[in-house]
Amino acid sequence: MSSSFGTIFKTTTFGESHGTGVGAVVDGCPAGVKISRDEIQAQLERRRPGQSRLTTPRKEGDQVEILSGLENGLTLGTPIALMVRNRNQKPGDYSQMSNIPRPSHADYSYRMKYGINSQSGGGRASARETLARVAAGSVAEQFLKSAFGVEIIAWVSQVGPVEMVLSDTEVENLSRSDVDATVVRCPDLQKAELMTAAIEKAATEKNSLGGVISCVCRRVPAGWGEPVFDKLDALLAYVMISIPAAKGFALGSGFNAATMTGSAHNDCFVKDGAKLKTKTNFSGGVQGGISNGQPINFSVAFKPVPTIGKPQKTADYDGCEVILEGKGRHDPCVLPRAVPIVEAMAALTLADLALRQQRSNL
Amino acid sequence: MSSSFGTIFKTTTFGESHGTGVGAVVDGCPAGVKISRDEIQAQLERRRPGQSRLTTPRKEGDQVEILSGLENGLTLGTPIALMVRNRNQKPGDYSQMSNIPRPSHADYSYRMKYGINSQSGGGRASARETLARVAAGSVAEQFLKSAFGVEIIAWVSQVGPVEMVLSDTEVENLSRSDVDATVVRCPDLQKAELMTAAIEKAATEKNSLGGVISCVCRRVPAGWGEPVFDKLDALLAYVMISIPAAKGFALGSGFNAATMTGSAHNDCFVKDGAKLKTKTNFSGGVQGGISNGQPINFSVAFKPVPTIGKPQKTADYDGCEVILEGKGRHDPCVLPRAVPIVEAMAALTLADLALRQQRSNL
Amino acid sequence: MSSSFGTIFKTTTFGESHGTGVGAVVDGCPAGVKISRDEIQAQLERRRPGQSRLTTPRKEGDQVEILSGLENGLTLGTPIALMVRNRNQKPGDYSQMSNIPRPSHADYSYRMKYGINSQSGGGRASARETLARVAAGSVAEQFLKSAFGVEIIAWVSQVGPVEMVLSDTEVENLSRSDVDATVVRCPDLQKAELMTAAIEKAATEKNSLGGVISCVCRRVPAGWGEPVFDKLDALLAYVMISIPAAKGFALGSGFNAATMTGSAHNDCFVKDGAKLKTKTNFSGGVQGGISNGQPINFSVAFKPVPTIGKPQKTADYDGCEVILEGKGRHDPCVLPRAVPIVEAMAALTLADLALRQQRSNL
Amino acid sequence: MSSSFGTIFKTTTFGESHGTGVGAVVDGCPAGVKISRDEIQAQLERRRPGQSRLTTPRKEGDQVEILSGLENGLTLGTPIALMVRNRNQKPGDYSQMSNIPRPSHADYSYRMKYGINSQSGGGRASARETLARVAAGSVAEQFLKSAFGVEIIAWVSQVGPVEMVLSDTEVENLSRSDVDATVVRCPDLQKAELMTAAIEKAATEKNSLGGVISCVCRRVPAGWGEPVFDKLDALLAYVMISIPAAKGFALGSGFNAATMTGSAHNDCFVKDGAKLKTKTNFSGGVQGGISNGQPINFSVAFKPVPTIGKPQKTADYDGCEVILEGKGRHDPCVLPRAVPIVEAMAALTLADLALRQQRSNL
Repeated sequence: MSSSFGTIFKTTTFGESHGTGVGAVVDGCPAGVKISRDEIQAQLERRRPGQSRLTTPRKEGDQVEILSGLENGLTLGTPIALMVRNRNQKPGDYSQMSNIPRPSHADYSYRMKYGINSQSGGGRASARETLARVAAGSVAEQFLKSAFGVEIIAWVSQVGPVEMVLSDTEVENLSRSDVDATVVRCPDLQKAELMTAAIEKAATEKNSLGGVISCVCRRVPAGWGEPVFDKLDALLAYVMISIPAAKGFALGSGFNAATMTGSAHNDCFVKDGAKLKTKTNFSGGVQGGISNGQPINFSVAFKPVPTIGKPQKTADYDGCEVILEGKGRHDPCVLPRAVPIVEAMAALTLADLALRQQRSNL
Repeated sequence: MSSSFGTIFKTTTFGESHGTGVGAVVDGCPAGVKISRDEIQAQLERRRPGQSRLTTPRKEGDQVEILSGLENGLTLGTPIALMVRNRNQKPGDYSQMSNIPRPSHADYSYRMKYGINSQSGGGRASARETLARVAAGSVAEQFLKSAFGVEIIAWVSQVGPVEMVLSDTEVENLSRSDVDATVVRCPDLQKAELMTAAIEKAATEKNSLGGVISCVCRRVPAGWGEPVFDKLDALLAYVMISIPAAKGFALGSGFNAATMTGSAHNDCFVKDGAKLKTKTNFSGGVQGGISNGQPINFSVAFKPVPTIGKPQKTADYDGCEVILEGKGRHDPCVLPRAVPIVEAMAALTLADLALRQQRSNL
Repeated sequence: MSSSFGTIFKTTTFGESHGTGVGAVVDGCPAGVKISRDEIQAQLERRRPGQSRLTTPRKEGDQVEILSGLENGLTLGTPIALMVRNRNQKPGDYSQMSNIPRPSHADYSYRMKYGINSQSGGGRASARETLARVAAGSVAEQFLKSAFGVEIIAWVSQVGPVEMVLSDTEVENLSRSDVDATVVRCPDLQKAELMTAAIEKAATEKNSLGGVISCVCRRVPAGWGEPVFDKLDALLAYVMISIPAAKGFALGSGFNAATMTGSAHNDCFVKDGAKLKTKTNFSGGVQGGISNGQPINFSVAFKPVPTIGKPQKTADYDGCEVILEGKGRHDPCVLPRAVPIVEAMAALTLADLALRQQRSNL
Repeated sequence: MSSSFGTIFKTTTFGESHGTGVGAVVDGCPAGVKISRDEIQAQLERRRPGQSRLTTPRKEGDQVEILSGLENGLTLGTPIALMVRNRNQKPGDYSQMSNIPRPSHADYSYRMKYGINSQSGGGRASARETLARVAAGSVAEQFLKSAFGVEIIAWVSQVGPVEMVLSDTEVENLSRSDVDATVVRCPDLQKAELMTAAIEKAATEKNSLGGVISCVCRRVPAGWGEPVFDKLDALLAYVMISIPAAKGFALGSGFNAATMTGSAHNDCFVKDGAKLKTKTNFSGGVQGGISNGQPINFSVAFKPVPTIGKPQKTADYDGCEVILEGKGRHDPCVLPRAVPIVEAMAALTLADLALRQQRSNL
């Protein structure tokens, strides 16, 4: 169960960071949908390590292989299996740590759970597992775009102390090329420079930085999401917090809602052609767990990468105090590379809810 | 699907706010667990409207009826069906609104989804549905307490602009009676008074207030939670955001993590008897989606109640501008009553993960 | 998990045979479907004990109560909770057996599973649980009939040694009133008399009889059922064998297929207006797990009721040999009363697959 | 959903018959279980076409590749991905049929479902998909054997008119090498010769034969299986009927139960050391859906292979009458090769129920 997500559009991921490869099986995508391998690959490139001076210098060259489910570029309605082989395996990098649970990593809790650890690397807790999500998410995104015109765009809105806010209009017009205009994937060029500087400073100090990614899903029809448990926003919270290092989720007004009054926060309606729209969008496009036709926007907070070069005083599994200095390859800030992961998880969520909604339209 | 939660310990809720009643079926609770109806009822009383001067004056007298699954106070291993009949039904209260979708309510999005609305009240989107969750959650909590000693305590940590912070030690020693010492369910007496004043002011102004509820789960063994998708923290995010009016979720450091460096945020280990513990708990008791034996703590942001007496300029379904003045019974601030709902959802999440963990201990 | 069935149209049952009541929660039925309580009740009457001289003389007077999900006779798209209270509780009837596991009952295996038994009656293994299935199944059937014109008719085709075969044409024209024309629910009047005589003879001998129920589902559109695992026929097998006392399932040619050659068994196609139909229907209306537009027909074998008045030499839980004489109320043959259960389970299966098929028609 | 099976021990299959490959992801296998690739391969060899003179002469050389989930031969508790690449692809073999739905194949119903067909071969309806099940089933079987000592043995008990019956004692002592002693996989040497002759006769006549496979699961502890829906026998019925060409399922006495009286059919108890056992086993090792500690035995009826060389008068998709002569490679009788498939599906069912039972043993 723990490696699958979705009720109708269902994704299962597999693979360890240092095994043969990682992959995903996407079951439940309708037949006859055009899927481009290039678009999948493009999202993988955005997640790839080594793509800029801000990320680790590994060149993984992650090439996606489509094992099943497509014929002549169209889905068959059968499971779409996707795989990326691991190439640049250097298990030795992590070997010194075998008896030391890395602080704020999953080493200790995994051992408590399974009584066994993958010998090297992070196993399933590794960020490399997210490759599979990005590949599957691209299939979902292509389906959503062709069937409903849905657009999903995420960007880095905070790195360490540097915050950036976009107006509703700016969010409405944002494109992926705006986001990719800077290596840090922040569409505000000035803030992007400050973020880049902050990351480079952290790298110099063998430290790391956290941040926030924001995301908008545009043109989602009203009516998606299920009442009570599988609310659109609850599922978004679930998938976003399932991304490694995520610590917080906020829809629309988020934690600011706590300080507002009802009269200020309520999104009143106005006529919009034959339909209604809301004057404001503090709800973030979701009311009662169901999309209301407005842009769905949310933010995800990420902690600083726990692998740092700076020495840390911690304990090994026997309780002996040790000084740990991370030597493995790692990013000082994962935010830029996490942008396509956030987009992928949003796409997987929306694709499933889109198909679950069909049933009400008999 | 949308009305069920859990893989092994599975809860299904039913009932509209103004129908015959609301209830829950809890399937998958192990046999032989002692369940007290009084404890279920006690949590319902904490959620009940009309319990203090801060809440709506309705006296629902919600009495839980146990329809199945228990014999002589012990679970049989069969589904435990719980029901609370609706008594104080006054559908007329809402009749004026039939052609006006209430701002920031689910009226509009439900109509877009189903093409039909429950004639009166909020249907499944009503806060009354949470009665079923509280009843089911109490069963989960009793199971967790007797089988593992787990303790779950939530409290109001913010109302409008009034914030309150507890130290780790204070959280460690917090009890439910500390929380219930004030009507606002904030264990800091001074802050509680400020919160109460803020709520009363909002009530006078026919307005409403949001806030934040914090929660700690103590004595959760290390090893609970699944990797990748059904992470403990991801499931908590999911169930918390599924509570009506929730807008944000934060585990441990939450959004503050965004501004911290790795060296400051990492929870280093120290010897703790035969085990390890962490010196700090920015992780909030969960690493890689799996409990690490430290207290699990998280916060949930709630928006201000959208039903307000203050006139609002909005539109009816035909797009005509109207002035809406809420006349139905409602709370100016739901936070105090939402405390047992947060506890219930945490309990349902942990009970399921506890049972899913059994399988690894062959 | 074990008390729920379905992916989109999902039914959860609850209730012990001798507790407060039994019931079902039907989640996922589309909004706006007309549901008649009388039709639910009518199917319960056909399942009811004491309805004829062939069944146990208990008068349970099972009246279904609809707790949620309907307003003005239409579904709201929310969970439909149905309950039948237990009235005629006589736990004493079973008390003598407390230390003796009844042969071919679930007493022994339940104790091995749970380490605890419901004090009286069969708990969840009791045939009374099927009440909940019949009520839920009637909702599914009404949905299928109004949305697709689907008709489901089951009948008793064998009791002990008395077998009855209908031609394809007879099956095509069969109605429920034909089935209900005899107390044994066999539409062949002569065979019905022989069956009745066989049951009466078994009753006189304090013994019991098994038999076979056959069922046809007409006007099921081609395309329902999922490939690989949730095949239409696999799900039918699953739900039918989940009925207490069921021992075998056969689709179309069933076990006779084993003795046939491919050229005899293949259902070749002929033109049928704008579509195709098959000349024969050995496939039973399902090919590759998916309906092909022909009538779906299948049979279910039931063992003789294990509760018999005839003395049996068996052992108590301590291994001591005992003579057991059943004194509880029981039927000598459950087949006539199981007809609506088979129909209900077929309806629940088809309703779910109908809704799962919607998603392919974007 | 349709490509996954299991609640805790969960298998997802993927792959078309003529695409890149077929495979399975097994999620939920406990950590630390020793898994031998050779044992997986051995079961694939038993399913392989071209293994004897009775089967099609293709040499697929299906080699399983383990993509994830194992390290040093032990499971990590993470998803185990298995793949077999397709090598001997000859799509041309099937090209003549593109406008003719093959009788009693899935061509027609798939087209009705999806509105699209895999261009060549049977897509997901192909028997080749069962490769993935056999590979996954072997993992389940190895887990069951090492953790519980469970043994699963299937054999061919009927081919066309040739039937074979084993006594309870013979079933108790049966081994896989007994089964594999003949190419037809019938452990009765004389009957095996008759079966072989019948198959060879069918081959000569360009026809095909059906049959029955029987199976026993030994040393299954009492207590496995869930009440109401996920009964052990109901799940077995489900997985067995999900095998291509399966038409009937019978547990223990099966359809014979219909002709027996209760006093003859009841399995009375006798002391067996510290436990009880039953004198007879008409129940087939399952009572009330839960294992009772006796051998679990069941039978599955298979129809004759629908692909035959003999000319058939049928219709193309346009309704025009055509004469179809199958030219593709095919077996005259699939029974011998289906033996490991039946074993695999039984293993997947039992592994899941074994892990679901853990939770009751707090």
